[in-house]
Amino acid sequence: MENSIKISEKDVLVPLDVPPDKRNTYIKNYLKLTQNTGRLMLFAGDQKIEHLNDDFYGPGIPKDDADPEHLFRIASNGKIGAFATQLGLIARYGMDYRDINYVVKINSKTNLVKTSQRDPISRALVTVKDVVEFKNYSKLNILGVGYTVYLGSEYEHEMLSEASRVVYEAHRHGLIAILWMYPRGKAVKDEYDPHLIAGAAGVALCLGADFVKVNYPKCENPAEALKEAVLAAGRTKVVCAGGKSKDPKVFLQELYDQIHISGAAGNATGRNIHQKSFEEAVRMCNAIYAITIENKSVEEALEIYYGK
Amino acid sequence: MENSIKISEKDVLVPLDVPPDKRNTYIKNYLKLTQNTGRLMLFAGDQKIEHLNDDFYGPGIPKDDADPEHLFRIASNGKIGAFATQLGLIARYGMDYRDINYVVKINSKTNLVKTSQRDPISRALVTVKDVVEFKNYSKLNILGVGYTVYLGSEYEHEMLSEASRVVYEAHRHGLIAILWMYPRGKAVKDEYDPHLIAGAAGVALCLGADFVKVNYPKCENPAEALKEAVLAAGRTKVVCAGGKSKDPKVFLQELYDQIHISGAAGNATGRNIHQKSFEEAVRMCNAIYAITIENKSVEEALEIYYGK
Amino acid sequence: MENSIKISEKDVLVPLDVPPDKRNTYIKNYLKLTQNTGRLMLFAGDQKIEHLNDDFYGPGIPKDDADPEHLFRIASNGKIGAFATQLGLIARYGMDYRDINYVVKINSKTNLVKTSQRDPISRALVTVKDVVEFKNYSKLNILGVGYTVYLGSEYEHEMLSEASRVVYEAHRHGLIAILWMYPRGKAVKDEYDPHLIAGAAGVALCLGADFVKVNYPKCENPAEALKEAVLAAGRTKVVCAGGKSKDPKVFLQELYDQIHISGAAGNATGRNIHQKSFEEAVRMCNAIYAITIENKSVEEALEIYYGK
Amino acid sequence: MENSIKISEKDVLVPLDVPPDKRNTYIKNYLKLTQNTGRLMLFAGDQKIEHLNDDFYGPGIPKDDADPEHLFRIASNGKIGAFATQLGLIARYGMDYRDINYVVKINSKTNLVKTSQRDPISRALVTVKDVVEFKNYSKLNILGVGYTVYLGSEYEHEMLSEASRVVYEAHRHGLIAILWMYPRGKAVKDEYDPHLIAGAAGVALCLGADFVKVNYPKCENPAEALKEAVLAAGRTKVVCAGGKSKDPKVFLQELYDQIHISGAAGNATGRNIHQKSFEEAVRMCNAIYAITIENKSVEEALEIYYGK
Amino acid sequence: MENSIKISEKDVLVPLDVPPDKRNTYIKNYLKLTQNTGRLMLFAGDQKIEHLNDDFYGPGIPKDDADPEHLFRIASNGKIGAFATQLGLIARYGMDYRDINYVVKINSKTNLVKTSQRDPISRALVTVKDVVEFKNYSKLNILGVGYTVYLGSEYEHEMLSEASRVVYEAHRHGLIAILWMYPRGKAVKDEYDPHLIAGAAGVALCLGADFVKVNYPKCENPAEALKEAVLAAGRTKVVCAGGKSKDPKVFLQELYDQIHISGAAGNATGRNIHQKSFEEAVRMCNAIYAITIENKSVEEALEIYYGK
Repeated sequence: MENSIKISEKDVLVPLDVPPDKRNTYIKNYLKLTQNTGRLMLFAGDQKIEHLNDDFYGPGIPKDDADPEHLFRIASNGKIGAFATQLGLIARYGMDYRDINYVVKINSKTNLVKTSQRDPISRALVTVKDVVEFKNYSKLNILGVGYTVYLGSEYEHEMLSEASRVVYEAHRHGLIAILWMYPRGKAVKDEYDPHLIAGAAGVALCLGADFVKVNYPKCENPAEALKEAVLAAGRTKVVCAGGKSKDPKVFLQELYDQIHISGAAGNATGRNIHQKSFEEAVRMCNAIYAITIENKSVEEALEIYYGK
Repeated sequence: MENSIKISEKDVLVPLDVPPDKRNTYIKNYLKLTQNTGRLMLFAGDQKIEHLNDDFYGPGIPKDDADPEHLFRIASNGKIGAFATQLGLIARYGMDYRDINYVVKINSKTNLVKTSQRDPISRALVTVKDVVEFKNYSKLNILGVGYTVYLGSEYEHEMLSEASRVVYEAHRHGLIAILWMYPRGKAVKDEYDPHLIAGAAGVALCLGADFVKVNYPKCENPAEALKEAVLAAGRTKVVCAGGKSKDPKVFLQELYDQIHISGAAGNATGRNIHQKSFEEAVRMCNAIYAITIENKSVEEALEIYYGK
Repeated sequence: MENSIKISEKDVLVPLDVPPDKRNTYIKNYLKLTQNTGRLMLFAGDQKIEHLNDDFYGPGIPKDDADPEHLFRIASNGKIGAFATQLGLIARYGMDYRDINYVVKINSKTNLVKTSQRDPISRALVTVKDVVEFKNYSKLNILGVGYTVYLGSEYEHEMLSEASRVVYEAHRHGLIAILWMYPRGKAVKDEYDPHLIAGAAGVALCLGADFVKVNYPKCENPAEALKEAVLAAGRTKVVCAGGKSKDPKVFLQELYDQIHISGAAGNATGRNIHQKSFEEAVRMCNAIYAITIENKSVEEALEIYYGK
Repeated sequence: MENSIKISEKDVLVPLDVPPDKRNTYIKNYLKLTQNTGRLMLFAGDQKIEHLNDDFYGPGIPKDDADPEHLFRIASNGKIGAFATQLGLIARYGMDYRDINYVVKINSKTNLVKTSQRDPISRALVTVKDVVEFKNYSKLNILGVGYTVYLGSEYEHEMLSEASRVVYEAHRHGLIAILWMYPRGKAVKDEYDPHLIAGAAGVALCLGADFVKVNYPKCENPAEALKEAVLAAGRTKVVCAGGKSKDPKVFLQELYDQIHISGAAGNATGRNIHQKSFEEAVRMCNAIYAITIENKSVEEALEIYYGK
Repeated sequence: MENSIKISEKDVLVPLDVPPDKRNTYIKNYLKLTQNTGRLMLFAGDQKIEHLNDDFYGPGIPKDDADPEHLFRIASNGKIGAFATQLGLIARYGMDYRDINYVVKINSKTNLVKTSQRDPISRALVTVKDVVEFKNYSKLNILGVGYTVYLGSEYEHEMLSEASRVVYEAHRHGLIAILWMYPRGKAVKDEYDPHLIAGAAGVALCLGADFVKVNYPKCENPAEALKEAVLAAGRTKVVCAGGKSKDPKVFLQELYDQIHISGAAGNATGRNIHQKSFEEAVRMCNAIYAITIENKSVEEALEIYYGK
């Protein structure tokens, strides 16, 4: 089954804002990031800013997760497409984890100021130019960049402008651009409304993103409901955020449905991976990878997760 | 009748902020954009950000419209002056639609934050310099740029500054500049007041725009009332926004009246085109084109729309 | 009488922020702008943004005024020192009106947001560098630039900074700098208080302006009251805004008094000129010019206005 | 007595942010500014923006003061260390007053918006680079720059950043940097509290200023109380603002006490000088100079002021 | 015992955002800053802006502390890793204290505006580029830079962006980057909550800081509680702020516990050092240094503090 989704260089549709001399770079980055499938299995690890230490320490969270290196150990030992986190964090561990594929998360905010107090705003910590320079210095496998937009925030315009620039500059350097598109703010009644999520996915397309990370809808039949977003995103591929830790079977079934029912191109998972002991986390990576990249069934993935 | 409105190079009045070495570029872009008539039939397709997925998916909207490529298929198969949308979207489909004339919409906002919460603000997603660079990379037929100003918003000054810069830079590179001028904000009582629309058209002239897109007034005799805006716009040509989907006959009669009664130089239509099945949408393009560019009657246009 | 106010190159006091190699340019611009008198007769035509279409269309306003070209026809056929308006507008008509002396109005805002809602803010639409570049492209007689500051606005600091830069950059390129200084905002009780107007004039001096345009005081004896502003402005010359259309005799007497009682160096008139039919408007220009530049009496000016 | 406070080149402690090739420039500027004493007698004349025309025209203010040239006549004929005012004003009179030592006041605001409405903010009108360029063009004796910070304002951070840059850039070009440090804003209970003034003086030191201008405390024994500020300022020298016009004897005694009791290094006086007729103003300069630079007694200074 | 914590060049893990040609510079700076131990004893002296004169003058504060040079005398005579303060202050005393190791504190604010009025914001006073330039001019031992972030402030995004840039630029030039991470703002209930402090430490890691300065938790067993932060900070080393002056024995025991129980890598002390007479302050430095760098016991340190 695995081979059925393999793609090669000629299958990569290079967006036109990639300059001719960077087309090959883009194609290589794209194939590496998607493990030659066009599908993305992203290990999302930007939560140390986004959620402070809430995701890494406390009741129900294994001790392994308290050490930031846990993320790198998982990313290095588990099967993933890429590990997404902030440049500063990569700069401090990357020398020991040169095998990992990285995506640099450009912006981040903490969870301290709530929407009821002020609408969310998250600004760039580094520029794409910095990322390119850093890639040259470090010789790390940096394949792309990520940026979060809070649509519907009173500061939406600031983030839309930055996001657009991030995508444009990433493509100019042959990097892959992933947008986290989250409707949030006093104007947003339901962040999980599938129609709104579809709108957000469409915005990512108009900004030129290669992948858009959205929330999985909360409604009667979410897998069916997500189809609207996949349609709206057009040539921008949709991946779903994993959200809070869930029962592995439920979680893997969701991922499977997102791909095989909704038509999503993968997933971006954080807590459902790292809020586990090292061994479990690696096996969860491999299970997700099995579904996403190796096109396996939920049962096969569960066998991987539970160590056969 | 068609030939009566044909113009040639010598008829194009090049604004003086076009540098001498870009005059020919400007003239060529202008003639191409107006299909050698001085009139503009713009297929406006920036709604995937402006209205999220509301215009593309839902009751009464044909399934075709849910796929973003619908817009490109129409623009490629229907007769139009140009298709206006965001750079990112163009970058992802343009390689398959090289025959389309494009206008890059520079700024966009979503419809989530309402005026009652905060006055509208829409900021540039890319610069004109980016557009010029992108045109060189992509070899696409990019003829001009567009920018929306919300006059009367508390952020009017930010958009006026950006709009002025967009026009100036566009002309510096021989591109055509189109301004969307919409009075909107807590200070605006009636966005469809013809006197206010005329004022908005006059602002576009003072910013040096080649075309100004305004709303069609809502009043007793809108075609007559729009004359004030056409007068106020002087050498900046007025085109009307199409607005919500309407009965084809009513809609085409409006376009005809705008040109033949009000003195408008064309139209900028989105939903009245793309909120149709592919075939109908193409025929609607052709019908609008017939009135605008081929100088035909409403009856002739309706015949085209209904497939003779 | 006319010759009595003639000045020549040696009479022009060049401010020291004009670099040595631009002194001759400055002197030539100054003499041309003041028609070799040191007095300024400015035809102020920035109202299409400032007042939208309110000044150009409606009861009591002649039809001629609805066409923006009306302004250029007047400026070309009437006697004036210079015509001040936005760069974009000049760019669209200037090729047909190469004989006009132009002043580029750098910033403008509409009248939609009232002070009761938010204090006024008007930001630069173009830079002085753009103006210089445009002058080179267009070969137009651009002699100077203008900028409006709303003193007492909560955004005063933003406009003071921009105004200061506009003056400094104008002088660096040998252009004349004119500041429109209007106290306005919730903190301003009476915009027409002569003491406040004098303060505003003094600010223009400290910013290095060549001319400052202020409102004519509203009080018992305005001509006498304006003396304070003329004194406060020192070497920056004071010109009064014309304001709303008035009876020609009253208006011309005001201008005369401003010069011969208050010590003003001229005037900046918009509506009292263009809110007239073409012929009347030209004659009004000539009448104002007679008082301002030809040093004639009110009676002589009225004869000119009424066509002898 | 005069000679006792004379200093020479070797006594000037050049701050380390002055680059080696500008050390001599700095030393020359410092000695000239302090008239070879290390003490500063600054004629502060930025009030035409700061206080509009309130300080220059009205009951109790001599007519001489209404003419801005009054300031230059005084600065040229009276003995002073330097005359501080805005670049634009200097640019218009400097050609006739080349003997004056100038300090360019970089920022200014008007007094229209009160703290009860909005906390104070004053932004740079020119950059230090402009000042250096202007100095080169004009060949004037520009020895330094000044900048006002309103500590405790909600916009404090904007002014601290600008002030720090002004000091750093001034030193880079060998210019002397003077900070006006005024606690002001809704958070400030008592602007004249000696402990708060001392804090403000310490901030100026941390920003690297050469001199800090503070208000003279209002309390039981202000001369004693000011000692805290002089201590807190360390190697940044303290000068007191003169404030409103006072009885000459009281005023000169204050200056004397500030130097001889508090340990201040001089003063910065505006209204107590210029709100006098030309002759009196010159004599007041000379009287202040006598105390500050010639190290004379209050009695000697009063004799000078009253024309012996 | 001392030798047991000695490290050498090979032990320094250089972050990957340090370019190859600056690796040696970074290593040298790191070893010098940590006195070849990997531990940091920072004498934090930025309070003259942060707390105005409150920390330096008043009841219970020795007279020595009123003179800013007190800080330099201590830093020069006591044993420390480095002295951290603003560039401007260093520029005025550094020529007499060339033996001191310096860390330039990039941003600072005063304590006047309270959180109840407006959330805290502190902006950069100088850039890292300025610091590098200043280091070259001055030839001072500048080893690194510091920056404060108020997490949870409504202006958090502005400070996160600046902090990220400061770290990135510092590393680009081989300088050490230290972040002061303080949760503060209306959204922050308890600044001393150990879980929140751990979150703040994790943010510093993600920004790439070498050291993070946090508050010592206030709770049952703070030394135990701080372990969470040390874990969360990963390869970014944690140092605790000293806070208000305390009993020496209590204070030194805290430092010891922070290192030996919590796993902190040192401390950053201000008031507990400088709010003492010169002799006592020097001995306190030496006592802290004994614990931190020489790995001594609390008893040994107290003997040093009390002069054996």
